[in-house]
Amino acid sequence: MLPLIKKSSSEPLYEQVYQFYKKEILMKQLKSGARLPSVRQLASDLGVSNNTIIKAYEQLLQEGYLRNEPRKGLFIEKLEKLHLHEVEVDRIQKQVAQRFKYNLSHAQVDQKNFPVKVWRKMSQLALDSLRCQIHFYEGEAGFKEQLSSYLYKSRGVKSNANQIVVCAGTNGVAAFLSILFRVTHRQLIFEEPGYNEVRNVFLKNGLKILPIPMTRQGIDLKRLPSSRNHLVYVIPSHQYPTGAVMPMQQRLQLIQWAAKTNSYIIEDDYDSEFRYKGKPIPSLQAIDHSDRVIYTGTLSKSLMPSLRVAYIVLPKSLEWREPSLEYLSLSVSYLTQKTLALFFEQGHWERHLRRMRKVYSRKYYHTVHCIKKNFGDKVSFQVSNAGLYLVLHVKSKLKEPALAKLAAAQSIRIVGAEECFAQEPKWKSSIFFGFGGLDQNEIESVIKTLKKVWSL
Amino acid sequence: MLPLIKKSSSEPLYEQVYQFYKKEILMKQLKSGARLPSVRQLASDLGVSNNTIIKAYEQLLQEGYLRNEPRKGLFIEKLEKLHLHEVEVDRIQKQVAQRFKYNLSHAQVDQKNFPVKVWRKMSQLALDSLRCQIHFYEGEAGFKEQLSSYLYKSRGVKSNANQIVVCAGTNGVAAFLSILFRVTHRQLIFEEPGYNEVRNVFLKNGLKILPIPMTRQGIDLKRLPSSRNHLVYVIPSHQYPTGAVMPMQQRLQLIQWAAKTNSYIIEDDYDSEFRYKGKPIPSLQAIDHSDRVIYTGTLSKSLMPSLRVAYIVLPKSLEWREPSLEYLSLSVSYLTQKTLALFFEQGHWERHLRRMRKVYSRKYYHTVHCIKKNFGDKVSFQVSNAGLYLVLHVKSKLKEPALAKLAAAQSIRIVGAEECFAQEPKWKSSIFFGFGGLDQNEIESVIKTLKKVWSL
Repeated sequence: MLPLIKKSSSEPLYEQVYQFYKKEILMKQLKSGARLPSVRQLASDLGVSNNTIIKAYEQLLQEGYLRNEPRKGLFIEKLEKLHLHEVEVDRIQKQVAQRFKYNLSHAQVDQKNFPVKVWRKMSQLALDSLRCQIHFYEGEAGFKEQLSSYLYKSRGVKSNANQIVVCAGTNGVAAFLSILFRVTHRQLIFEEPGYNEVRNVFLKNGLKILPIPMTRQGIDLKRLPSSRNHLVYVIPSHQYPTGAVMPMQQRLQLIQWAAKTNSYIIEDDYDSEFRYKGKPIPSLQAIDHSDRVIYTGTLSKSLMPSLRVAYIVLPKSLEWREPSLEYLSLSVSYLTQKTLALFFEQGHWERHLRRMRKVYSRKYYHTVHCIKKNFGDKVSFQVSNAGLYLVLHVKSKLKEPALAKLAAAQSIRIVGAEECFAQEPKWKSSIFFGFGGLDQNEIESVIKTLKKVWSL
Repeated sequence: MLPLIKKSSSEPLYEQVYQFYKKEILMKQLKSGARLPSVRQLASDLGVSNNTIIKAYEQLLQEGYLRNEPRKGLFIEKLEKLHLHEVEVDRIQKQVAQRFKYNLSHAQVDQKNFPVKVWRKMSQLALDSLRCQIHFYEGEAGFKEQLSSYLYKSRGVKSNANQIVVCAGTNGVAAFLSILFRVTHRQLIFEEPGYNEVRNVFLKNGLKILPIPMTRQGIDLKRLPSSRNHLVYVIPSHQYPTGAVMPMQQRLQLIQWAAKTNSYIIEDDYDSEFRYKGKPIPSLQAIDHSDRVIYTGTLSKSLMPSLRVAYIVLPKSLEWREPSLEYLSLSVSYLTQKTLALFFEQGHWERHLRRMRKVYSRKYYHTVHCIKKNFGDKVSFQVSNAGLYLVLHVKSKLKEPALAKLAAAQSIRIVGAEECFAQEPKWKSSIFFGFGGLDQNEIESVIKTLKKVWSL
């Protein structure tokens, strides 16, 4: 089997030879143990110089596709060693499959405005302090103090650094809280529909889920049990996925219920940084005087998902009751925490938030405008003036998977909202419209495309 | 209450005023809401210039200890805002307490030889690729591939990158495996004595522990249950804390038992990089043909603890059976994984390991030599030619806490081995001698000090 090479191509000849063999090996057209033609032979067959072949073979050798047996020749590497490359193929194929032009998942954030330069600078400063922090079994207090101070200023959250647990993403938060409450509570009251990914982590960690339906004003307080010692998970500021905002009156009632029944409230305040209109309602933690609220948040939306940093503010009464909890919480590297501490300390965090609030606010109102203009009454949604996504309830006979499939054919990734239900889904044609990762000038054309393929 | 200032001191006067008030506020000698004397008043009382007082007050204002009420004066900040500083005091006190001159914990590593420059370079390269990796909900395949390749070369571990889970430290590994097995297995067979920190994480995550005693050749195989579907956790290469190395014969028997009883073996190979003599015995995973071994390891000993990176190689049969597991595993930031990928890719990892093996080997043999020379038969220990610590069984009437206390008085931190037992401890005067973090030339003097204070 001779490589097909194009002498007229702009790609160098050796590169063509290299790419040909790499692909043949990866696709298993050439089996491991097979011998490659000698340099002279192949050069002569292809009518190219020996050097071209040598260069291609060297590259393949270096990358581990070939092994050299002295005086025998070059052979395709054994299968066990090749698995790496098989995986690489998998990955490439997967990436291609995932490479939608537009991703409307709720979890997408704006990439363009991430302050890469500042982050790099803070990282470098953090690196300077690395040598004396190689051990760091004790955690980095600086970041916790900055966070404590920020949460007080922005959300009224009262805390000291000892109450803060830094976790590896929201899944880390849920895993940590599962360990904290699994034995004493066993069951978690959860909004229905609710944040399915978090619900799954609690489930996996052994907590039972008791779904309580959402109203327009948050979880239905009338349905909360009157018995004692419960644990409830709520997103009062901008509920996922309904967008509901819990009014002050309901917040106070929920806290009263918790105090009366000796229950704990887990308050997930995950995208509270992005509220575009009106005064934000204080967090539950800020108005709670009975020490019943566990406050949680994440930097995935406000900074970047790939950082894997979220946090918990424990109530005073739960503050590191057991030293083993502290050990469990060391899940974010020193460098990351130190970089964050500097990023906060030097004012970049607040600057970044101010900028992003403007960016997302513009995107939000533009999205709302374009949806109304193009979809008219074919689509309904909750106007919550907050967050990085809308949930669109599409008036169509098509169910969610069909809507997603039609969008995918246009290279638009759509995630349905059906999985937010623990019980029988009440929404059949509801999808996320995450505008966070879209460019402002892409929004309308994406909407127009969806209108067309969904025949609205 | 007037600040005590020394005009003859080398410390600037404003600094003395600032430090005085800071301390009084932190120690709550001055209550929140109290008003400070006016600049002119205090300057006159102390006989210093107005500027000295202004400079001190400004510093206190900037740091949040004071608030300025226009036309009223300066007041000590409210309690809620002051908590940050209380914590700071806590932390400083704690740090002082922890600042032993010598730390003999098993978890200490060599700081001097950490390749800070190279790490910085790799981090910077990783930062270059950050802009397009802000989302990264998909994980970084490059590091997994490098790890897979390294584990094959060094420990015979057969894997592809899809089998690898990157976790936030060994606690992350145990938490992940708890989720994986909690429902199907409920109970974990554990070495007695064994790795208590890991045992605690499994316990916290809802697995029961069945302790099985150690022999000199690893966990006592005769005591393994003959019933089906068990889960056992072993450290065959260099057991913690006994130092036992499981011989080949026993390894094969353990694997046979697992295959016969349909059980899984969790193989923790945590410091296998550091073996100083003889050929290492292959990992259980390498000699297992029945897909019963879950292989785990960490970079805490071989690279640095503050990185918070450990890993699992799942058996083929468990490879991402559920997509929700993949979500759970995203606990290490993109930048860390990318930095590691580059560190491995460019050969720094193997170079670092080669160097550290030499460094620790020298420290190990020097420690063994000095212990024999100084303690004679007053101390016994297992010679395992591996790892970063020894467990010393001290022939003394003093129990472990007394030994640690006497050492602490000499600024030597000692961790006892008693907690390694889940049941009644069989060792009463056994302590870790972690030499990893000691300078070679400190080792003998530490030993001599211990001999003296322990009256051996």
